Amino acid sequence: MVATAAAHKRLDLAYQIEADVPPALLADPDATLGTPAELFIIPDHYIFRMLYSQGIGLESLGVPTRDGAPVENDHRAIWQRFADNFFLFRGTPTGLWLQDELVNVFGVRERLNSASAGRIYDQLAAQIARPEFAPRALLRRFNIELLCTTDAATDTLELHRRMHADGLTHIRPTFRPDAVVNIASPAWREQIAALTDVSGEDAGSYAGYIRALEQRRAFFKEMGALATDHAALTPYTARLSDAEAEAIFARALAGTPNADDAARFTGHMLIEFARMSAEDGLVMQLHVGSSRDHNTSVFARFGPDKGGDIPLATEWTRNLYPLLNDYSTDPRLRLILFTLDESTYGRELAPLAGHYPALRLGPPWWFFDSVNGMRRYFDRVIETAGLYNTAGFNDDTRAFASIPARHDVWRRVSCDWLAGMVVQGLLEEDDAQEMAADCAYNLAKRAYRFETHSE
Amino acid sequence: MVATAAAHKRLDLAYQIEADVPPALLADPDATLGTPAELFIIPDHYIFRMLYSQGIGLESLGVPTRDGAPVENDHRAIWQRFADNFFLFRGTPTGLWLQDELVNVFGVRERLNSASAGRIYDQLAAQIARPEFAPRALLRRFNIELLCTTDAATDTLELHRRMHADGLTHIRPTFRPDAVVNIASPAWREQIAALTDVSGEDAGSYAGYIRALEQRRAFFKEMGALATDHAALTPYTARLSDAEAEAIFARALAGTPNADDAARFTGHMLIEFARMSAEDGLVMQLHVGSSRDHNTSVFARFGPDKGGDIPLATEWTRNLYPLLNDYSTDPRLRLILFTLDESTYGRELAPLAGHYPALRLGPPWWFFDSVNGMRRYFDRVIETAGLYNTAGFNDDTRAFASIPARHDVWRRVSCDWLAGMVVQGLLEEDDAQEMAADCAYNLAKRAYRFETHSE
Amino acid sequence: MVATAAAHKRLDLAYQIEADVPPALLADPDATLGTPAELFIIPDHYIFRMLYSQGIGLESLGVPTRDGAPVENDHRAIWQRFADNFFLFRGTPTGLWLQDELVNVFGVRERLNSASAGRIYDQLAAQIARPEFAPRALLRRFNIELLCTTDAATDTLELHRRMHADGLTHIRPTFRPDAVVNIASPAWREQIAALTDVSGEDAGSYAGYIRALEQRRAFFKEMGALATDHAALTPYTARLSDAEAEAIFARALAGTPNADDAARFTGHMLIEFARMSAEDGLVMQLHVGSSRDHNTSVFARFGPDKGGDIPLATEWTRNLYPLLNDYSTDPRLRLILFTLDESTYGRELAPLAGHYPALRLGPPWWFFDSVNGMRRYFDRVIETAGLYNTAGFNDDTRAFASIPARHDVWRRVSCDWLAGMVVQGLLEEDDAQEMAADCAYNLAKRAYRFETHSE
Repeated sequence: MVATAAAHKRLDLAYQIEADVPPALLADPDATLGTPAELFIIPDHYIFRMLYSQGIGLESLGVPTRDGAPVENDHRAIWQRFADNFFLFRGTPTGLWLQDELVNVFGVRERLNSASAGRIYDQLAAQIARPEFAPRALLRRFNIELLCTTDAATDTLELHRRMHADGLTHIRPTFRPDAVVNIASPAWREQIAALTDVSGEDAGSYAGYIRALEQRRAFFKEMGALATDHAALTPYTARLSDAEAEAIFARALAGTPNADDAARFTGHMLIEFARMSAEDGLVMQLHVGSSRDHNTSVFARFGPDKGGDIPLATEWTRNLYPLLNDYSTDPRLRLILFTLDESTYGRELAPLAGHYPALRLGPPWWFFDSVNGMRRYFDRVIETAGLYNTAGFNDDTRAFASIPARHDVWRRVSCDWLAGMVVQGLLEEDDAQEMAADCAYNLAKRAYRFETHSE
Repeated sequence: MVATAAAHKRLDLAYQIEADVPPALLADPDATLGTPAELFIIPDHYIFRMLYSQGIGLESLGVPTRDGAPVENDHRAIWQRFADNFFLFRGTPTGLWLQDELVNVFGVRERLNSASAGRIYDQLAAQIARPEFAPRALLRRFNIELLCTTDAATDTLELHRRMHADGLTHIRPTFRPDAVVNIASPAWREQIAALTDVSGEDAGSYAGYIRALEQRRAFFKEMGALATDHAALTPYTARLSDAEAEAIFARALAGTPNADDAARFTGHMLIEFARMSAEDGLVMQLHVGSSRDHNTSVFARFGPDKGGDIPLATEWTRNLYPLLNDYSTDPRLRLILFTLDESTYGRELAPLAGHYPALRLGPPWWFFDSVNGMRRYFDRVIETAGLYNTAGFNDDTRAFASIPARHDVWRRVSCDWLAGMVVQGLLEEDDAQEMAADCAYNLAKRAYRFETHSE
Repeated sequence: MVATAAAHKRLDLAYQIEADVPPALLADPDATLGTPAELFIIPDHYIFRMLYSQGIGLESLGVPTRDGAPVENDHRAIWQRFADNFFLFRGTPTGLWLQDELVNVFGVRERLNSASAGRIYDQLAAQIARPEFAPRALLRRFNIELLCTTDAATDTLELHRRMHADGLTHIRPTFRPDAVVNIASPAWREQIAALTDVSGEDAGSYAGYIRALEQRRAFFKEMGALATDHAALTPYTARLSDAEAEAIFARALAGTPNADDAARFTGHMLIEFARMSAEDGLVMQLHVGSSRDHNTSVFARFGPDKGGDIPLATEWTRNLYPLLNDYSTDPRLRLILFTLDESTYGRELAPLAGHYPALRLGPPWWFFDSVNGMRRYFDRVIETAGLYNTAGFNDDTRAFASIPARHDVWRRVSCDWLAGMVVQGLLEEDDAQEMAADCAYNLAKRAYRFETHSE
């Protein structure tokens, strides 16, 4: 990997976005990582979308169908299929992470290919069976100071309660209310019913819905949550009058929304969530720009998150204006932005983060959580935003074992960037050393207001 | 030039987009390259648009006018004018190619400038007169395995028949139906008449028009065509009902189209062409984003393709959705995308090509067929799409003698990129060597389904 | 700093956009630079927006309020606050310029931080008090051949008259009519009244308004102006009929404009200004894409230009089409374009500048007047536009003492880029040496048609 790693306290603050598996893994002390196919292939859309792009059917990779139609269940055959095509991952971050995991987590010294596939499968299976490779053991070994899962607003956080009881207090929930905000989703009304049940507030009216959300946030915070997470197709924000909000909410409950109700309601709720964050201090994260389930036939057969999410061009300057002008001056608000449109780094996001006190720019996300993605981020963002308006690194992996590899890539690329700045006389060496530690650790802790004695 | 060339079988698969001259050149065994001005300047909009941008009139460069008004016909004076201003091409790919051609094709050792212009003109004229510089001789010397011209749907391919008769079976046609699809063009109705004549199908109705296109595709395929080529201002696609398509077609024939008929018809026909490709196996190429003939006064006086084509921002994710969802799961469809908007590489095109089996991403095109354009392509595309969802290299030159130079730039830049990845520990050296050969040769052959024994 | 500086005549052509302070500074022979806080912090939005982004109030930095509410007036305390937070500027151009100024203009050898703040304040104060640091003395020392201020259309240019009387004939005005063009501005009607007064033409009708503008341009030209400067949110251009223009003008004067009148009037006037430039030969500069005063609370309290201007995505190909097709073929027109949307460099601006004789592409502007901004500019623009369709370097600083630093960054980055091209065999060394002098000096002079004997 690039350059030389910085000498600093190696510590990871990891986010697990959309990942309900890992909490379960860690909540059950007897859980295991499963078969190599279950660990590396079947749940990982980074892996199977690349194989799919070359004509390999998801069924043949053991990806479960919605209707339960049978798929490949010979995990050794799935692994062989993956190994036969591992060359497809040359030059990709997925390939980089996987090789790093094989070597540094599982001690596999052979290169993965058709010939070595069987031997490596056996070696991995044997390792996974050992107690040192139980999820909780790896959690300790990975030296993760904070691991935040992302959880539905309706989640009882039972698993977190159990983990905290077992002393895993560094595993925290994150409040992700998308499912109760997206009125266009067929499941929305059930979600509202569930929200009522779990909150004890009648979410059947807009006012009650707001109270229920505030109740859930308070509960998440009590359970150690530091932040909320919001996904939107665009960063469109615009406040509705209570009457308009109530009317849209009623139309949605009645199943008769207008064409633009969903977009308008989301745009309004983002401002409401900014208000709540200003009031309760939960850091607000906004992930924008993914057109989900673009491949309708894959979605119909296999469901969401199957590697068919495609980014859209994103406009931040005009869209965030209403939210920023309502709450950006409130010193309690902290809003972290994530984009899938790199052309907005220098044009919109760095100037915004370099001005508004409430804003921090999140690390390169998803497709850009890569060596080149990080380099472009440093080159385009820092000159205008400065390093100290960025949020350091976190990842959104659902692949538990890839956490160290992902953070290591960030550490190496950030140090490579800093070293290059020093060599060119653009930074003093002692400043660069401080910045290396900030990139690896301090920025993320400050951005998420995570207070410990370790800083 | 950059880095070191890879050790691999040097072989070019060249596309000649919009180039009807080269086929004529090669069809006539006694053809010559003409004067140095005819070879390098008069037909090459890459060259004269740069001179024009500095106030040098196209008339003074011998570019023929539409109305036949006289222009400079002293080719030695044209060449001198070009040489006097050759400094304008410093740092441009055009300058790079031209120097490469002078040295490696024509053996000119002097640098081109005002003082050497006359001597170099004489040397070039002498070389061109020799049999080794006849087009067919150069074709052999260039070691081109496959040269695909781009030809109108109404073309009889007489020239190809003649070339094949002379054993030049590696010169293939490509089906380019734009002229019969663009109902907004004044010449469209004549084109439909010509389509009827050449196909024997009555193209005067939508149904007959579709039959005529299918007949032509079958003929092109019989004549060795591997692919089709489609140009569009945007990648907008949307299927029309047969009734709507028929109605638009009728309005167009009647000369009374509605404002959006042309865009809707093109968007519909792109889906129809995807269907035909899925059925007959011709690889579908889509070139998007050029606003043609932006300079109306140059267009009025000199006609199309005079260096006044300017790119537009392009949106792929939403626009291609209808086409991809109708045909992307058909394993017979192969769709290769070319863009003039680099901001879509990482944001839209690499995620699309990294998911849909039918898609491949074409090489950097036109303005981006350059050293930096290729570097940006490798840096932004491969991490997400992987190398094996790209189509290797082809060029769209109309300058026959520049083919080796263009392919050589690609080979050198791809090897420079690979060498950098190895040095950084991001690729294994043996993998990189395989990838160098893939970039230079195998990817293009696979993308265009060109089967030979040479792989 | 990067690479090695070129061996060439070091000479700066500096623009002072929106800077009325510097002319006053230079017009008064007894003026001083003020306190270190007045020189470096209070007037510089590059500096205080970064401090503000980290929660430091503008009041505490001495930025004056609109209503005169008191702000920090202890300049030593302001300086200390700045020094305490100087780490925020690591890796930013602002930090680079400031360090360069401290060392090379003021001879400060210590690094700025909390501990050294007081000592450095005293040292700066002492230097500023010396006659060698009087503005006119620095102007000589900076070796500035041409300094163009930017001045309202209604300016009497009294200060310039006084400076010219004192022999400072190399300080020229630039005609910036934005305030009399933007009918949406509350102050527009006063501006029209002022235009009538100063021009002697009745600007109360559209025809008179045009005459008044032509009169002012003639006067500015007489006072040595070389250029005009126009700012717009978008490059939208479209000619109105005289009747439409007259109607919009009348509605605006009556205070009853339609929703799109301002945009349509600006789009029309840009074409009118192109006509005037073609007629009087003043070089036309167009700065596009800044959404001004995005932070309404900062604007309400402190007024414009407080670091809250955020760029917007910009479309050039379609928007400039009407203007270019009316006047681009007029050899007298020279139009220099500046963008805040780097994605348009390779996609739109380089192809436009590489074709239209009237166009030149201005240097990286504002947020992109930086080391990486310049690198991206060279890498994306030159291959297509060629170096000779660019306008060399000018800056838009309002910080007088930062002029040498900004030009030095450009010289170093341009030489670094050229050296890299030579090392890669993409340029001949003697050509690169000529291009270094062109980047540093000749291109800017030619672009602004500034004739001297020094070339």
